[in-house]
Amino acid sequence: MNITEVEKLLIEVRDGEKSIEKALNQLKNFPYTDLGFARIDNHREIRTGYPEIIYCAGKTVTQVRDIFHAMLESENNIMGTRANSEMYEAVKSAVPDAIYYPEARIISLQKKNAERPASRIAIITAGTSDIPVAEEAAVTAELLGNNVVRIYDAGVAGIHRLVDKLPEIRSCRVIIVIAGMEGALASVVGGLVDIPVIAVPTSVGYGANFGGISALLAMLTSCSSGVTVVNIDNGFGAGFSASMINRMK
Amino acid sequence: MNITEVEKLLIEVRDGEKSIEKALNQLKNFPYTDLGFARIDNHREIRTGYPEIIYCAGKTVTQVRDIFHAMLESENNIMGTRANSEMYEAVKSAVPDAIYYPEARIISLQKKNAERPASRIAIITAGTSDIPVAEEAAVTAELLGNNVVRIYDAGVAGIHRLVDKLPEIRSCRVIIVIAGMEGALASVVGGLVDIPVIAVPTSVGYGANFGGISALLAMLTSCSSGVTVVNIDNGFGAGFSASMINRMK
Amino acid sequence: MNITEVEKLLIEVRDGEKSIEKALNQLKNFPYTDLGFARIDNHREIRTGYPEIIYCAGKTVTQVRDIFHAMLESENNIMGTRANSEMYEAVKSAVPDAIYYPEARIISLQKKNAERPASRIAIITAGTSDIPVAEEAAVTAELLGNNVVRIYDAGVAGIHRLVDKLPEIRSCRVIIVIAGMEGALASVVGGLVDIPVIAVPTSVGYGANFGGISALLAMLTSCSSGVTVVNIDNGFGAGFSASMINRMK
Amino acid sequence: MNITEVEKLLIEVRDGEKSIEKALNQLKNFPYTDLGFARIDNHREIRTGYPEIIYCAGKTVTQVRDIFHAMLESENNIMGTRANSEMYEAVKSAVPDAIYYPEARIISLQKKNAERPASRIAIITAGTSDIPVAEEAAVTAELLGNNVVRIYDAGVAGIHRLVDKLPEIRSCRVIIVIAGMEGALASVVGGLVDIPVIAVPTSVGYGANFGGISALLAMLTSCSSGVTVVNIDNGFGAGFSASMINRMK
Amino acid sequence: MNITEVEKLLIEVRDGEKSIEKALNQLKNFPYTDLGFARIDNHREIRTGYPEIIYCAGKTVTQVRDIFHAMLESENNIMGTRANSEMYEAVKSAVPDAIYYPEARIISLQKKNAERPASRIAIITAGTSDIPVAEEAAVTAELLGNNVVRIYDAGVAGIHRLVDKLPEIRSCRVIIVIAGMEGALASVVGGLVDIPVIAVPTSVGYGANFGGISALLAMLTSCSSGVTVVNIDNGFGAGFSASMINRMK
Amino acid sequence: MNITEVEKLLIEVRDGEKSIEKALNQLKNFPYTDLGFARIDNHREIRTGYPEIIYCAGKTVTQVRDIFHAMLESENNIMGTRANSEMYEAVKSAVPDAIYYPEARIISLQKKNAERPASRIAIITAGTSDIPVAEEAAVTAELLGNNVVRIYDAGVAGIHRLVDKLPEIRSCRVIIVIAGMEGALASVVGGLVDIPVIAVPTSVGYGANFGGISALLAMLTSCSSGVTVVNIDNGFGAGFSASMINRMK
Amino acid sequence: MNITEVEKLLIEVRDGEKSIEKALNQLKNFPYTDLGFARIDNHREIRTGYPEIIYCAGKTVTQVRDIFHAMLESENNIMGTRANSEMYEAVKSAVPDAIYYPEARIISLQKKNAERPASRIAIITAGTSDIPVAEEAAVTAELLGNNVVRIYDAGVAGIHRLVDKLPEIRSCRVIIVIAGMEGALASVVGGLVDIPVIAVPTSVGYGANFGGISALLAMLTSCSSGVTVVNIDNGFGAGFSASMINRMK
Amino acid sequence: MNITEVEKLLIEVRDGEKSIEKALNQLKNFPYTDLGFARIDNHREIRTGYPEIIYCAGKTVTQVRDIFHAMLESENNIMGTRANSEMYEAVKSAVPDAIYYPEARIISLQKKNAERPASRIAIITAGTSDIPVAEEAAVTAELLGNNVVRIYDAGVAGIHRLVDKLPEIRSCRVIIVIAGMEGALASVVGGLVDIPVIAVPTSVGYGANFGGISALLAMLTSCSSGVTVVNIDNGFGAGFSASMINRMK
Repeated sequence: MNITEVEKLLIEVRDGEKSIEKALNQLKNFPYTDLGFARIDNHREIRTGYPEIIYCAGKTVTQVRDIFHAMLESENNIMGTRANSEMYEAVKSAVPDAIYYPEARIISLQKKNAERPASRIAIITAGTSDIPVAEEAAVTAELLGNNVVRIYDAGVAGIHRLVDKLPEIRSCRVIIVIAGMEGALASVVGGLVDIPVIAVPTSVGYGANFGGISALLAMLTSCSSGVTVVNIDNGFGAGFSASMINRMK
Repeated sequence: MNITEVEKLLIEVRDGEKSIEKALNQLKNFPYTDLGFARIDNHREIRTGYPEIIYCAGKTVTQVRDIFHAMLESENNIMGTRANSEMYEAVKSAVPDAIYYPEARIISLQKKNAERPASRIAIITAGTSDIPVAEEAAVTAELLGNNVVRIYDAGVAGIHRLVDKLPEIRSCRVIIVIAGMEGALASVVGGLVDIPVIAVPTSVGYGANFGGISALLAMLTSCSSGVTVVNIDNGFGAGFSASMINRMK
Repeated sequence: MNITEVEKLLIEVRDGEKSIEKALNQLKNFPYTDLGFARIDNHREIRTGYPEIIYCAGKTVTQVRDIFHAMLESENNIMGTRANSEMYEAVKSAVPDAIYYPEARIISLQKKNAERPASRIAIITAGTSDIPVAEEAAVTAELLGNNVVRIYDAGVAGIHRLVDKLPEIRSCRVIIVIAGMEGALASVVGGLVDIPVIAVPTSVGYGANFGGISALLAMLTSCSSGVTVVNIDNGFGAGFSASMINRMK
Repeated sequence: MNITEVEKLLIEVRDGEKSIEKALNQLKNFPYTDLGFARIDNHREIRTGYPEIIYCAGKTVTQVRDIFHAMLESENNIMGTRANSEMYEAVKSAVPDAIYYPEARIISLQKKNAERPASRIAIITAGTSDIPVAEEAAVTAELLGNNVVRIYDAGVAGIHRLVDKLPEIRSCRVIIVIAGMEGALASVVGGLVDIPVIAVPTSVGYGANFGGISALLAMLTSCSSGVTVVNIDNGFGAGFSASMINRMK
Repeated sequence: MNITEVEKLLIEVRDGEKSIEKALNQLKNFPYTDLGFARIDNHREIRTGYPEIIYCAGKTVTQVRDIFHAMLESENNIMGTRANSEMYEAVKSAVPDAIYYPEARIISLQKKNAERPASRIAIITAGTSDIPVAEEAAVTAELLGNNVVRIYDAGVAGIHRLVDKLPEIRSCRVIIVIAGMEGALASVVGGLVDIPVIAVPTSVGYGANFGGISALLAMLTSCSSGVTVVNIDNGFGAGFSASMINRMK
Repeated sequence: MNITEVEKLLIEVRDGEKSIEKALNQLKNFPYTDLGFARIDNHREIRTGYPEIIYCAGKTVTQVRDIFHAMLESENNIMGTRANSEMYEAVKSAVPDAIYYPEARIISLQKKNAERPASRIAIITAGTSDIPVAEEAAVTAELLGNNVVRIYDAGVAGIHRLVDKLPEIRSCRVIIVIAGMEGALASVVGGLVDIPVIAVPTSVGYGANFGGISALLAMLTSCSSGVTVVNIDNGFGAGFSASMINRMK
Repeated sequence: MNITEVEKLLIEVRDGEKSIEKALNQLKNFPYTDLGFARIDNHREIRTGYPEIIYCAGKTVTQVRDIFHAMLESENNIMGTRANSEMYEAVKSAVPDAIYYPEARIISLQKKNAERPASRIAIITAGTSDIPVAEEAAVTAELLGNNVVRIYDAGVAGIHRLVDKLPEIRSCRVIIVIAGMEGALASVVGGLVDIPVIAVPTSVGYGANFGGISALLAMLTSCSSGVTVVNIDNGFGAGFSASMINRMK
Repeated sequence: MNITEVEKLLIEVRDGEKSIEKALNQLKNFPYTDLGFARIDNHREIRTGYPEIIYCAGKTVTQVRDIFHAMLESENNIMGTRANSEMYEAVKSAVPDAIYYPEARIISLQKKNAERPASRIAIITAGTSDIPVAEEAAVTAELLGNNVVRIYDAGVAGIHRLVDKLPEIRSCRVIIVIAGMEGALASVVGGLVDIPVIAVPTSVGYGANFGGISALLAMLTSCSSGVTVVNIDNGFGAGFSASMINRMK
């Protein structure tokens, strides 16, 4: 039930088309509808215009398909993250308009497009192996209504690659820096700009990288002011937070 | 050397009061002046109007005093973080206008005040023991030119305390959530608002808190979208990032 | 050797029927075969109300089948945890009355049913991915003779979902809270009720979740009183402890 | 906003006394100020049987004294945990009836005493060094209205010491086991009884004890069913949870 | 080249059948012969009569087969640990007398049998899942010339199972205790006997067991004197050390 | 109550000087006598002739003194480990015959001396900083009735120092190797001898030594067979286990 | 912008050809486009003696092939590390001259060969399982223009194996020591030579080896001077650094 | 026993002057007293160009003084690391020529000075707090006979500071980079030069710095080739290794 539905309910009450009792009962279940195995949060929509987010990784193919199908009637956009292609095939059979971004592992059902502000989000990766996480961030930000500048493979081992792009990076409103291994790129970028930097450590690497811990710790202890951090490989979270900042009025 | 000094230099060159050679030599040392033990970065000022930041924790009382004294001629504001009262006494003897915020452990020399935007930063703590970190964030944000709403001791063990404050919290532009122990407050706040949340884990607690690790991990793995994290006890970093977002145009 | 045997030994010594040397030798093993341990055997008999528990994960299919088969003549119920369907097929061939709960991964052979008390156990999960652990807890509790209330997918990112269910939750005698990622649900529930909460961290998540460590630490450091914790993914242990409390007289 | 207020709102809409727009705005804050949270306030009142708990460790002497003083007019008992003697002296000057339990590090102001149930809580420690944590648990349980049986220094290195006490331990309704080092006592006790065991790891020990981690992990992975765990050194939490179970009706 | 070969060489020198130069050249390569990819240590044999040990886990099937084949001419027994059945098939094709112990994952080529002392080694496991590690220890000890008493599935959750076996356990000269999860069995056994205990933590378990770390830490911090520890799952190491002690004169 | 006291009791029973009832009551409390805060284990004596061991680190000066005093009448030797000089002064005032080994931090009250076997225990340290732990091991072994060979400061950085001592080391029956930092000495010694090696990691070092973890892990993963490990800095445990092996018949 | 451009700017200001405002804007980007970074580009050209390095592990087969193909026209040698045979097949189809070193997992396209200095690099492994990492180091060093001495399977458990090779090892200019498990070989080699030692911990082993951590920590805390460390399994890094040192003039 | 002794032994056997049995016994100790180890002693003599190194941290003031005094007659220089001023006062009383470098915490007794090569070692720190570690490295390198270029406080948060110094850095033969917090400076420097970089993580920082672990991991996982790492705060080790490389011929 979204905001226009609540409005419709109130109009029906006003116009005597719906009894107080029936309206109360409908409102009681207002924040979510029950699918049995998963309670879907429609409430967010009222507050934000954001799409419904489904974290697919811990779910079965059938569960993912059913959740998309159940949401079909809602006016919200729907976004499934950490989705594999098998999930997408299942969703598509039930929801033909769904689109899949394989590198970003996102299934999207876009019902309406938010207006995009002129300001942009820069997404910088240290290496090519960080691109899947970067694409998760980029597609998330784009689906949430943002323009994205992609600058990939600009790690500190070849810091000059970054220098060329500085004017473009500085023209953005928020920066996402994605790096595995020693994660130094976040500090370097943070030291060169005066724009909020959201750092995403990736699990790319081996040995003392420990699945992203070394990059995570490096980013958390960054000497550069203005750097905040999200979970390892959490491209979605970075894209979501960046969108919040970029779409601020 | 700050931006007005560069401007002055260019004017002198234009007016024939300074030779090209002399100007070049001055510009060569442009980004910083050398104090022997510490190279102070004046360069930031040009880009930002932010104060000079001195991390005092790893320095001797004498070093802190000398750095403040050496910066006296600059037009920038100066901020010393993690400063104890002994450091302040030494600084004050050399720089009488310096002010000390004991709970925030910040020494400030404010030469000019930035215009404060109408939008505000909410700072929420889980417990009273988190207040020193919160004050570091709050004073940082205020010195950087922001209005701050303090909501202390509103942890999830008594979640109703938070509910009362929701309208005020939602009226802010960015939220800093500060919590030790299990750090759940960040997730709870993140689930209730559509505003960027910067989470600060604190080392408050004992046992399996492991000096802030439990709160740090909880915040990084928060299920609520829109939450980013800074280092354990890093009130300054949170205040700085929040200021960047709050002062955005 | 029990107390009456010691008495008999002393009488034999007194009456000269047993030499000092022989008596000394018998007493040498005294402390570990005494009353306490004798009582253990009775204790096992008293305990027979409980089912025999077989932890299947570290065993071969053949071992699991054989253990079930060997226990067939006992009057106890039998419960195999962490059992896969292949194990069940093997058990079923030898013990046709065995039942399998696939989501809970439990094989059960119920020979008699305990009387169920009126009081109930609430089982709450943060997400749908936590359901397998929750089902392990729920089926365990049910097989041990308890009524269970399942409230799934009620995590803190949408805390309002929990609020609806509060009256039902509060009507239970003990609560099991199951959550991965930041595990904040345990603290939130613990802050809203005055009922013992058993928290189960799950390995659901990625990155800084570290296989359940973040949830585990968060639950251990919970600011809410009345929360105790079991091992990561240990639905069985939570169900067992909850049953102990719920079936108390 | 509670359910009758929502009903009133709908009636006003129906009767044309409230515009759709105004109603929508009011409903916007609906989920967080609804029945559930209204119930929380009642809930706090019901809850007043419990004392107010103040965690003193992260607070100044002055803060502790002021909190005790401010609560003086409430009808609740007050309990300050992790309090040192200096804090007590300050509290006592403001609240003369306050009592200090130095080994338990608890300041108590008991305004009324709860009726004590006949059932008891057993508190068992592995060594003498675990006694401060045990006393925190014991005094907490006693102040919350329970009878406690103390069995100290009964670790597994001399397991026969435990055997003597088994009848007394088994006569209790809930057991708290407190142990540092390898924490094996929790498993041993758990294997000998059919009563809920709350295990408290302590930071007692050295080397690979790692400030209580070895005992914590051992307790979490206990093979004995019916064992749940609280934070390292968290005698208060164990006493509180044990009291909840022991005082159940 | 073993001790009898050195003796033979010396006899040949004495008898003038071998020149000094030739003898020197032979002795030069005395400690090992070169296989190209692996230098096999024959030297041990001189010192000890122990078999050659091949750790197979990090080797290819071909490498394992070739090493066994190359050693065929030596008089030493050969033992391959952590060997899978595929490796055995390959070895067997080249060395038909090789025997495989599948549960212990050991390939053995026994050329001569050491005389077995009367004293025995007790091997106790906490659960059935620990048996593969126990068998590695047991077969190792037997191949090294020891009699072994196997006592499996006697964990602390059912401590009475252990009590029955105490007289037999106490009659042994050294004890190996093998346990996963909380590893408490080592402390319990250590508290009941005055015989050296070698503890082997196993990776059996899940969650906070962390691949054997909880058992390892518990064993290292055991309160019982006389307990020493080997690596997680290191049945071979425990069997080897126990054999050293048991075969002492 | 020790074995001769039990014998005396039986004689009194035989001779009619003690009633069955009184004898039973005495035997009931057989394993320990209660000091209030600490139950002292006399039971060990019966089994072993080993001294009473008191771990002093977690106790107050008064507690240590009282325990020594209470044990004065027992025939056992008494050994207090991790004792500081203040504890010794207190013990000495109550028990004038007590002796203090300051480097080993051991207080000893030797009532009778065990016969020393001809075989010896070698104690080897990597550096001079490991000596306090080595002395704890050495004094423990000596008080338990063993001859000790001390070889200090023979670390692998100068491996030739070890070579000189090999004949002496090989003449011992068991070896204790004590090393901090990378703990490589245990592997090197283990590779050069065919004697049981008990390795003691020490917390000596800094940085990635992590309080002894690096040495601990290195010793646990030693490639040399015949190496077992005790807790970090646990000189006592090594000395005790070595004594068990050295005094074997 | 380089120094002559700054000079030109100043001249234009002096000559009134450029406004103060325009000059200020140009100078704003001054620090990051200055001499230093201009020099970086020259620096890359100088650097072309080194091959292009492609870390293949995080890339798709197609990406690896395309990168090789795109670089075909460059004069540089190309080296792909962590490449599997499937990647090689793809590369070979596009770049027929590419060569594969399967044990080292390196694809190489050698366009010109550097002159090899007379001095050599010794590569020593503890076991046969360390050979893949050693081969990565060896092939890297050889492709970078060095002669390599391979000494494999010379671990400390049989330290005499190393002794034979000491003269050859000492004749090298730099040593790479590769070891898993306890990593003691680095310390032992470091104690026997006066040549720089680069230590490579490997993930070979099990249990408390923790994927190479034990070897890593042991190498970092090595008591032998002159030992530096690279990441776990990082044969490439060791070979690269050793080449830098060996090819020094 | 060296090779000529073995030859002599064989001749004696041939000539009947030595029995087979006696010869066998002598050969038993052959591998460890052979050529290799004999060579070690010569090797130590060759090595005397290096100073004697005393790690003072784990020693008493008296021990440090006595070691210096005992070494007085040797021709070697002596260097005591991690020495406090109290140790120096004691040393000075016995060895008046000893010199103390308080920031580096080094006591030096320089008897002869090595000839310094023209090439230099650059030592770069990220912050002023890293200077004590840098001075330990610098003084070590100088005492070992090297010229050092100190570049302090050039961290990545202000990367432009580094750029100025690049020509000077590139003119050195080896670089030591010292950084705490995120340790990114090592990667940045490594990406800008083609000179061996020895990275020293420092324990400077707080929170997720974990005593230097974040910097250590970042340096180990550096994407820049040519970077090797020493232990946290190990300025001495870095200076020693750098000297080895810088003084190479």
